[in-house]
Amino acid sequence: MPILYLEMHPGRTLEQKRAFVSEVTRVSVETLACPPDSLQIVITEVPREHWAKAGKLLSDS
Amino acid sequence: MPILYLEMHPGRTLEQKRAFVSEVTRVSVETLACPPDSLQIVITEVPREHWAKAGKLLSDS
Amino acid sequence: MPILYLEMHPGRTLEQKRAFVSEVTRVSVETLACPPDSLQIVITEVPREHWAKAGKLLSDS
Amino acid sequence: MPILYLEMHPGRTLEQKRAFVSEVTRVSVETLACPPDSLQIVITEVPREHWAKAGKLLSDS
Amino acid sequence: MPILYLEMHPGRTLEQKRAFVSEVTRVSVETLACPPDSLQIVITEVPREHWAKAGKLLSDS
Amino acid sequence: MPILYLEMHPGRTLEQKRAFVSEVTRVSVETLACPPDSLQIVITEVPREHWAKAGKLLSDS
Repeated sequence: MPILYLEMHPGRTLEQKRAFVSEVTRVSVETLACPPDSLQIVITEVPREHWAKAGKLLSDS
Repeated sequence: MPILYLEMHPGRTLEQKRAFVSEVTRVSVETLACPPDSLQIVITEVPREHWAKAGKLLSDS
Repeated sequence: MPILYLEMHPGRTLEQKRAFVSEVTRVSVETLACPPDSLQIVITEVPREHWAKAGKLLSDS
Repeated sequence: MPILYLEMHPGRTLEQKRAFVSEVTRVSVETLACPPDSLQIVITEVPREHWAKAGKLLSDS
Repeated sequence: MPILYLEMHPGRTLEQKRAFVSEVTRVSVETLACPPDSLQIVITEVPREHWAKAGKLLSDS
Repeated sequence: MPILYLEMHPGRTLEQKRAFVSEVTRVSVETLACPPDSLQIVITEVPREHWAKAGKLLSDS
C-alpha cells in the first residue's frame, strides 16, 4: 500500500530514474517491512520556473 | 468542498474523461450528500516512465 | 494503476465512505476501462478550520 | 519548512508567477512567522480538460 | 479554480491561520487576477516526526 | 529541491521511520545526485478505513 511521490526538477536520465525507483523500493522494503509489489512510486518533474524558494523562482536564482 | 484527484497513465480519450467526471460526480453526490457544484475533480496524467511498482518503471515492465 | 484522492470535511459515516469507494470504483472501471484491483482510493478529512474559500476559514463562514 | 502548492489553469505570464511567489512568500513570512528561505512554492498548471466542476470538464463549460 | 495547499508544522494559532488565508487570498487575487471566491486553500499540519530533511526527522534535529 | 511524500498505514515505529528517511535520503543522493540537505521527506499515515482497493475499504478487507 505505501505510495511514494517524488517531486524534482527535470534533467535526470532514465537510467537515474531506474536506479532511484529500484533503490528506494529496496530500502523501503527493508525499513518499512512491506512487500515490494505493494509499493508504488510516482515521479513529477517540476520546471524551475514553477518552483520558488525564499520568494524567487528558481529559474531566476 | 470535496476535491478529487485522479492520477492515471496517459491514453484515455476526452470522451472517457467526460464520462469519468460526470459519473464520479453523480455517485459522489449520492454517497457523500454534497451539492454537485461543490465538487472539483483534477486529473493528472503520469507517463509510465514516471510510475514504478515493485522497484521497476512501468515503461520497463 | 489509477490512484484517486478525495479531500473532504469530516462528518461522513463509515457507511457513506463504503458506498463512495464502491460506487466510484465501479464507475471508474466502466469509464476508464481499468481493472478494479488496479484502483486505489485515499480519503483525507480536512477540518473546516484548515479549509478556506474567498479568504475565510470555513469554520468562520 | 512550509511548502505551498498552487494548482491553477495555464495562461498566467512569468511576470505574474514572479509576483505571486514574491507576494505569497512575503505575507506567509508575516502571518506564519517563518524565515523566507524556509518556504518553498510549487506551481502546477492543470489544463481545463483535466479540471472538472459540477460533473463537467471546464473545457466544456 | 486555483487551489492552494499549505503544509507546515503544527503550532500556529487560529488567528495566524486566519491572517494567512486572508492575506494569501488577497495577494493571489492581485497577482493571478482570479476572483476571491474561486480560490480555495487547504492547510495540512505535519508533525516534526513525520518531516525529514537531510536524512533526519525534524523531531530528532 | 527534491521533495518526497510517503503515504502509508499507521503502525510503523519511530525507529522504522528514522531508518526509512535515513536510507531513502542516502540512496536518493546516490541516484539523483542531489545534496542531502536539499531533500525533504513528508510522511502521511492514512488509516485503513480511509484507504480502498478494488472498491473496498482496507479496514473491511
